[in-house]
Order: sequence, then C-alpha cells, then structure tokens
Amino acid sequence: MISEKMKPLVQNNSAIRAMFEEGKRLAAIYGAENVYDFSLGNPNVPAPEAVKTAIMDILNEEESNFVHGYMSNAGYEDVRETIAQSLNERFGTNFHLENVIMTVGAASGMNIILKTLLNPGEEVITFAPYFVEYGNYVRNYDGNLVVVSPNTENFQPNLTEFQEKITKKTRAVIINSPNNPTGVVYSEETLAQIGRILTEKSREIGHGIFLISDEPYRELAYDGVAVPFVTKYYDNAIVCYSYSKSLSLPGERIGYVLIPDAVEDAEEVTAAAVIANRVLGCVNAPSLFQRVIKRCVNEQVNLEAYDRNRNRLYGALTEYGFTCIRPQGAFYLFVKSPLEDEKEFCRICKEHHVLVVPGSSFACPGYVRISYCVSYQQIERSLPAFQKIAAETIG
Amino acid sequence: MISEKMKPLVQNNSAIRAMFEEGKRLAAIYGAENVYDFSLGNPNVPAPEAVKTAIMDILNEEESNFVHGYMSNAGYEDVRETIAQSLNERFGTNFHLENVIMTVGAASGMNIILKTLLNPGEEVITFAPYFVEYGNYVRNYDGNLVVVSPNTENFQPNLTEFQEKITKKTRAVIINSPNNPTGVVYSEETLAQIGRILTEKSREIGHGIFLISDEPYRELAYDGVAVPFVTKYYDNAIVCYSYSKSLSLPGERIGYVLIPDAVEDAEEVTAAAVIANRVLGCVNAPSLFQRVIKRCVNEQVNLEAYDRNRNRLYGALTEYGFTCIRPQGAFYLFVKSPLEDEKEFCRICKEHHVLVVPGSSFACPGYVRISYCVSYQQIERSLPAFQKIAAETIG
Repeated sequence: MISEKMKPLVQNNSAIRAMFEEGKRLAAIYGAENVYDFSLGNPNVPAPEAVKTAIMDILNEEESNFVHGYMSNAGYEDVRETIAQSLNERFGTNFHLENVIMTVGAASGMNIILKTLLNPGEEVITFAPYFVEYGNYVRNYDGNLVVVSPNTENFQPNLTEFQEKITKKTRAVIINSPNNPTGVVYSEETLAQIGRILTEKSREIGHGIFLISDEPYRELAYDGVAVPFVTKYYDNAIVCYSYSKSLSLPGERIGYVLIPDAVEDAEEVTAAAVIANRVLGCVNAPSLFQRVIKRCVNEQVNLEAYDRNRNRLYGALTEYGFTCIRPQGAFYLFVKSPLEDEKEFCRICKEHHVLVVPGSSFACPGYVRISYCVSYQQIERSLPAFQKIAAETIG
Repeated sequence: MISEKMKPLVQNNSAIRAMFEEGKRLAAIYGAENVYDFSLGNPNVPAPEAVKTAIMDILNEEESNFVHGYMSNAGYEDVRETIAQSLNERFGTNFHLENVIMTVGAASGMNIILKTLLNPGEEVITFAPYFVEYGNYVRNYDGNLVVVSPNTENFQPNLTEFQEKITKKTRAVIINSPNNPTGVVYSEETLAQIGRILTEKSREIGHGIFLISDEPYRELAYDGVAVPFVTKYYDNAIVCYSYSKSLSLPGERIGYVLIPDAVEDAEEVTAAAVIANRVLGCVNAPSLFQRVIKRCVNEQVNLEAYDRNRNRLYGALTEYGFTCIRPQGAFYLFVKSPLEDEKEFCRICKEHHVLVVPGSSFACPGYVRISYCVSYQQIERSLPAFQKIAAETIG
C-alpha cells in the first residue's frame, strides 16, 4: 500500500535496523558494558548547564503563550537577530535577522532549501564520503545526487573530478565540514577553490549554482583549528546549521538556515524557504528551544571530553597498526579497513563486540567509521578488542 | 532562482502576508487595543501549569543526554505506550506503542503520511470548507486534492458528492473534526456513513482508501459533545494529532500519527512513515516535549475560557442579525457574509478595525472565519464595531 518512492527506502532501512538490533542482541547476551558500540553519532557529552538554567529562567520570566506559541514561520525575530549578531562578531560578517530562518535541525533545513531550489531532474553534487541521507533529501524533490569520488589522500574534496561533473543540470553542491565521517576540516584553500570553480562554472552554464554547507559539526574542532566560514569564499552560499552537536541537543531539533543577502535572488529564496518550512509541516522550529538559543548563543559543550577521546582512540589504533587520517573536527575516526572488503572487517569487529559502520554507507568502501562520542570508559574497555582485531586482520 | 513548484506558493503567500501586515499597520496607527484581530488560530489560553511543572521535574530528574538526545525516529517507547494506553482508556481501543509515531505536530504528521502513501497523480479527497494547507501538503507529493463542495445546511460533509468523486485514482480522504473553520463536530452517523462508503468503494475500485483524520481540535468540544473516535467507524483510518490546542503548545511542534493494526499493510505503512519522518528532515519529534507529553497525557487547557468566548461572541453576533452555525468544537465561528462577496465584507470589517478571514481561503466563499481564541476583553471591546458592521451590511 505504500508509495513507489518509499519502497526502496523501506527495503534499505532493514539493513541498518538489522545492525541496530544486532547491537541490542549482543548487549543482552554479553552485558552492555562488554559491547563497544561505535556506530552512532549520538553525543554523550551533556548539554551545558546554561541550557537548563535558560529553560528554567524562560519558564519563570516569559509568558506561556509567548514561549510555547506560534511566531512567524521564520522564527522569533529577536532570536534570529541574536544569531546574526553572534555570527557577525565571530566571523566579521554582516548578517541581519532576515538572513536567518529557524529550522527543525539542519536535516530539516536541508530539506527546506532543496525544496526551495530543485526542479525535477536537476542535479546536486556532493563529495564522497558523505552522509547517506543527502541522497534521500535530494530525491524527495526528484533531483539526482551526483557523487564526486573520494580523495583518500587527505579527504579534502577531489576538485578536478568536481569540475568535470558540473553540468547545465547542476543546481547545487552540498559540502559538510568538519566532515562526517572523516573528521576532516575543509581548508581555506579548498573553499576558495570551490568558490572559484563555482563562479566560473555558473557563468559557463548560464545560471547560478548554490553551495549548501551542512554544518552540524562547525563548533567541534580541535588542535586550535579554525573552521573557515563558507560565505566568505562564495557569494551563493547557504548554511544549514544545527545545535545538535554544539549544545548536545540532537533530539530537540533546533537549528537554522542562513541565506546571506549576497545569494542570488536572496529575497525570493528566503521567502520560498520560509514557505517550504511551513508546507513541509514543520511550520516553525520548536519555540522553547528558539528562546533557549537566544540565551545560549555563545555556549558550547565541553569539547575537551571529545578531544580526550579522539587522542586516546586515534593514538591506540595507529599504535596497533591501523591507518587513519588524524581528524581535526566532528567526533569520528575514518579508519582504513585492513581487509579489502570492509564489510568483512566489520563482521570481524562484531565478533569482538565492536560495532562500527562500513564506509560503503558513505560511498567510500574500504574504510569504517568509528564514532568516539562515547564514554572514555568505553574507549578504554574496547582497546584490548581493537588490539585483537588488529592482530587478526593486520597480522 | 527558486523551483517552479515554489513559485505559485510565493505568489499566493503575498496576499496572506499583506493581511498580516495590515493588522500590524492598523495597530500602529490606532493602538493594539483598538484593533480586533480575529484572524489567527493562535491559542490565547495558556498551557496548563502541569506543563511547566513537568519540564522542571524532567530537567531535575532525567539525564540531559536522555532528555535532549536522539531516540528511535518514531519517538521514545515509553511516551508512545503512554499515549496508546491513554487512548485505550478513553475510547476502549486496543492500541499499543507500535501504533504511535511521535511527530513535529499534526502538519508534519500529515506530510509524513502523504509521503508514505501517495504516488504522483493520485487523488486525495477533502470536504470544503477545509484548511488551505491540505492542498500544499498533497501537492508536495505530486498528488491532486479533490474538493467536495460545502454543505452549508449544517456543514456536515456532502456525502452524495463525496461518493461520486471517488475514482480509481483516489488514495486517501482527509477529514477534520472538530472542524476548522466551521467548529462543527462530525457526527457518529457521518463517520459511520463515510466508513461504509469507503469500504464499498475500496472493493469497487480494487484498492484500499485511507481515511486521514486531522485532529488538532479533538479535545476542544463544548456543550458536553463527545467527538467520536474515527478508528471505530473505518479500519483503514489514520489519525494525525497535535497537542497545539489541547495543551496550548502550537510553537513546540509536538503531536503524533496513529496507525492502528487494522490499517491495510499496517506494518509496512508504519515502517515507511517512520522513514518519511526521518528523510523529510524532522528525524524525530522534539525530545523534551515528548517527555512532557508522558507526564501530561491527560492534561488539558482551560476549556471554559474558550466556551465563554464562544457563547459571548455567538450570542452577540446572532443578536446583531448575523447568521452562523453554532459551533460545538475548535475555536472558530463561521459566519455567513451579509454581502455576496465576502471579501468586500472583510474590507468593511477592516474599516472597523475588525480582522477576519474570508471563507474563500477555505474553499467556501460567502462566509468568514472568526477565531475566538482571543482575550474575553478583546471580544467585549469589539462588539460595538460588530454592531456597526451589522448596521452597515445587514441594514
């Protein structure tokens, strides 16, 4: 009885669910503490205390009908202005409230923008490895996702192939930095080159190409690395942001879309995006958490916990002989599978009660993703298992 | 630069926005207390105190990573079970947690279900007057909304025309009771007849027809009227519920979709709906408010306030000579325009600083919608204006 479009999604989903169920099954048999689940991107660092304080204060200080009520579909004006000003202070930009649309997380922001821009049959380019949902988001609007193959040298995007894949049908490009699954931060040079290529190609094909920057990991960077702000390198750039990771609020679904004035037809694009927010059924971003963001715009989770995890796990795995690019952001390690078939490697990991995600789920076979947004104790406990896996697969 | 599909939406939107701006403009000139805005469905009765208490308790008693974290895309299992049990106690049904998917309000629930069911070119039937967004929701999935003309006798649906409009292309039917904009509650007899017609027609056309019941106003009924529970009258019935009105939380975007076991291919439909929730970008319903619902499942806003507004405004308007069906639910009056062109009537109302919505926005010209989810004081203050409008238009 379900629609033709949903059928392959239901089919596919069973595989992911099977992995999920397998984790539960193992935990039931061996005890949760003896199963090392590195498969999920669910933050383990708690939200900053300021979030709790903000909620309490809001409930005591602001009117119920205001806090929980409808507002403009784009969000409360004071919240949007606060975000714009915070960006301006940090990045020297010139945004104002009209550039900001509050959304039900970045995933919803991506849907809103793709609905706003895409005509059936148009193409959206992204770079492998990439978050698997991009394909679903693009197909929601009958677009086609075009994938640039991975540059496994350093996991910066492959710009030569990128250039070749831009056609008259290209409507947008999705980037994600710090990157899920590699943890790599796109360099200034990378962004500047992407900007140059898109400017040139837009002229060549005769219409603008939008750069959509999916940035749930923007604030998660280590080693003092600065994540370059994308709108400085290309005018036609739209940011989809989420507080899921920076404030550890993934379940609350709170984020925004930033459409700078410099975007082509910015006013029309913004108006359409606000309507898309409404007609796709979100209507507006959750109101209480909009109010929370106003009070917590410059707050951040304890990054040191992730950094400690990163250093411990990266250090141990490379010591055991695994090959992995040192991640500078997000909370993932993207480890080269010692076996050609990384699914076989995942199977062996599972024998040692270690759950990791095959790179083919990110269009990058031969690698596995390890999420280190887990307790430090889980990492410590898992190391003997990783050592055995190394012995078994690297030799 | 925006997509072809979004263009008419942006075009159309300007008209609604213009009305909005007009209200603001009038308030700026004459003072907000001298402008009587009856155009919005934004509840003025505050959320029950229990909601605030629940939030405080949750933040003090439950772990941050649990309260604000990811859960299954369908929602927390204990919340879904609580809702199922609450329905069972009230309606003598037999639901369980697997029947309930938590959603970003009813609007998102509608989108999820339509994405789950609709193939391009298929038809969804609804009854005028109806909430204008239904057309947008259906078009999101390339379906066509087929509208049954209004039965202005008593605003129960016109079932003869309904029967005639069911074709092989009919995939679903949307109903909304208590109804926006009429306030009418569909009777048991109406639902039973709809069920009979759909059962018969499903057999005739050779495939199931889903009945989608949009129920944000379910708990808002007066005069002791019981709103019949739709799943009792037809097996293939899916409910889209929202706590926007029953708990005055419209900005929080919290609701659920109920897919009973009796629905055709219920398991597949449910699986697809959960995936649709994810790929449309909601991912899950806001987590804190899911936890709130668990604790407040049997709470309700103060209905007496709406009832008092209803009686005062209905009484006054009919006394002044206006014709209006006495609403038994929701918080709207659907008043017959004394002038043939109800837009002209709206214009005259505006001259008296009274803002109401033309019935043509609900596919029912010749009427206007008056929202009485406003302060009692606003109603009192507006009555002289209504009296003048009556004098001017009824004579």
